[in-house]
Amino acid sequence: MIVPIELLNTKTVSYDITIDALPKLSFDTKVVIVTNPTVSGYHLDKLLDMVDAKELSVVTIPDGEEHKTLETVERILNQLFERKLDRKSLLIAFGGGVIGDMTGFTASLYQRGIDFIQIPTTLLSQVDASVGGKTGVNNKYGKNLIGAFYQPKAVYIDPLFLTTLPKREFSAGVAEIVKMAVMFDSDYFDMLESSDLDDEDILKDVIKKSVEIKASVVNQDEREAGIRAVLNYGHTFAHVIENETNYTKYLHGEAVAIGIVMANRLAVELDMISLLEADKVTSLLQKFDLPTEYDISSVDEFYEHFFLDKKSANNSIKFILPIGIGNYCIKSDIDESIVKRVLSSFGVSG
Amino acid sequence: MIVPIELLNTKTVSYDITIDALPKLSFDTKVVIVTNPTVSGYHLDKLLDMVDAKELSVVTIPDGEEHKTLETVERILNQLFERKLDRKSLLIAFGGGVIGDMTGFTASLYQRGIDFIQIPTTLLSQVDASVGGKTGVNNKYGKNLIGAFYQPKAVYIDPLFLTTLPKREFSAGVAEIVKMAVMFDSDYFDMLESSDLDDEDILKDVIKKSVEIKASVVNQDEREAGIRAVLNYGHTFAHVIENETNYTKYLHGEAVAIGIVMANRLAVELDMISLLEADKVTSLLQKFDLPTEYDISSVDEFYEHFFLDKKSANNSIKFILPIGIGNYCIKSDIDESIVKRVLSSFGVSG
Repeated sequence: MIVPIELLNTKTVSYDITIDALPKLSFDTKVVIVTNPTVSGYHLDKLLDMVDAKELSVVTIPDGEEHKTLETVERILNQLFERKLDRKSLLIAFGGGVIGDMTGFTASLYQRGIDFIQIPTTLLSQVDASVGGKTGVNNKYGKNLIGAFYQPKAVYIDPLFLTTLPKREFSAGVAEIVKMAVMFDSDYFDMLESSDLDDEDILKDVIKKSVEIKASVVNQDEREAGIRAVLNYGHTFAHVIENETNYTKYLHGEAVAIGIVMANRLAVELDMISLLEADKVTSLLQKFDLPTEYDISSVDEFYEHFFLDKKSANNSIKFILPIGIGNYCIKSDIDESIVKRVLSSFGVSG
Repeated sequence: MIVPIELLNTKTVSYDITIDALPKLSFDTKVVIVTNPTVSGYHLDKLLDMVDAKELSVVTIPDGEEHKTLETVERILNQLFERKLDRKSLLIAFGGGVIGDMTGFTASLYQRGIDFIQIPTTLLSQVDASVGGKTGVNNKYGKNLIGAFYQPKAVYIDPLFLTTLPKREFSAGVAEIVKMAVMFDSDYFDMLESSDLDDEDILKDVIKKSVEIKASVVNQDEREAGIRAVLNYGHTFAHVIENETNYTKYLHGEAVAIGIVMANRLAVELDMISLLEADKVTSLLQKFDLPTEYDISSVDEFYEHFFLDKKSANNSIKFILPIGIGNYCIKSDIDESIVKRVLSSFGVSG
């Protein structure tokens, strides 16, 4: 006997990403803002001015990647239960990638899922992390290893919040922008080379372009069965670097910058990109004071760490590599010795 | 500036529920069976005989609702990371509702989601819990308050596993069957009144009917925005009872049996069902030695506890009530005094 089950009204998910001054937001449900002390210190007053709700409260969680854990999510959940949120309630993620990832994950778990919206306040989360519904936490085995695909109901990107962002964090966000450009759009790359991101209008255009690329990729492949993996360009290396340095030495975007340089050097080795093009990418990263060197103490250990990455299915490593600037390739059959030779060039001597 | 996002290839989920002797299952990925000591003691050998995998291992977790916690899920997750499961790996839930809910939830979380299949071994999980993708855990605030909607890839229901099920647990499963019949199908109810569930073929037909009802409800409303809430008939009361008795005195199905009687008495009070019909339901429950009485020590406290239920949106309690036998009604506007009067009839005097 077989009974088939088919969910007829599983709806296509859609939402808007608004890149502009934050509008007035009004809800006739309970709303909880999840934020951290830094963002809250600078901008919470403004957000509270703009949000109207049946009952509005704020949960503040500690700043930093090291707090992106299941324990913190459980603490947020407990706060929601104490406030007796129901299934119609809404969370607002107000902060950078850590806040967005954890708030979205919490929203996915609370009573099997309540709505949330993203109001990203860092460049990295504005151009990348807040769009596309990847949520989750880290654990001792690696980054983002526990989580859910769970889309926000809306994303509001207000560049004004970037005015208080430390220069180093701004640059970290640029790394993800460079990633999008190298993978998908050489015109965008050229634009970045000549753009002054201190100019408000130019910055807005740059953010918009990045969000458009991200949205188009997610639209095609929400669950990373194919093209979405391309957004992990640089990340296969970056995750190992972050793990080796306990998530403390580098900001995520900084590790991605190094990872991009590593991926490019591998692509040069495989004749997929010219040395000149690889150098252009490195120069662009350096223009924003991003790190492009890393001392690998043990190439074997570094290589071994690849296998904990989510993308390493069935013991093969998927490398996301550029083909020139503006095109990508996913390769999972690269000989171990080639990868290790490239890694060796990042040895102690730099 | 607004960038719309629309996930074009969010696929309709579909899978088969097989009610028959467990077939040979073969996978070319890593497979982890999650089970408990009781089920494993009786039936693991048989399952291991039927499952072929690239790498097969077993995670055993303690038996009982009190272990259905985020902590246990984290322990399972850690076991999966130790075994280096990748995104193509698969979990098999082999046990009752607790195992199914936690295994499905774990599968939803591991690397943002890997496949799982259900092989339910209790009557309750065979006729109800294993179908429809509700996963999750309890916490101090209540039952199933943290979780995900996450569908299995397949469900294999083999009545053979029921031969070792304690009589009390078998009866607990019958409570959910009675629930389906009273809500959706008076012929099914009549059939249950006259059926001998010790007969293997009859039992199989009864299971199939229940699974068909469940599948049809889930097909219409996966996320419980409407009709799926009808499956909570009896549960609004049962959750309070389980909470008050610390999940130890009653099996879930037993609490549901009492909850059904309570809901019916409320329906009688509202002239939605006759006393005769309500008594017929009570008699059917009693035929399977299910409890139908409960001593409410404080009606006010009992009533207060309703509001922690997930279904109690915006401080109104949704009661799922029968209209005669075979039809349902969702009512959220019942006067507090009427509910309390009905609850009072379950006072210390019984």
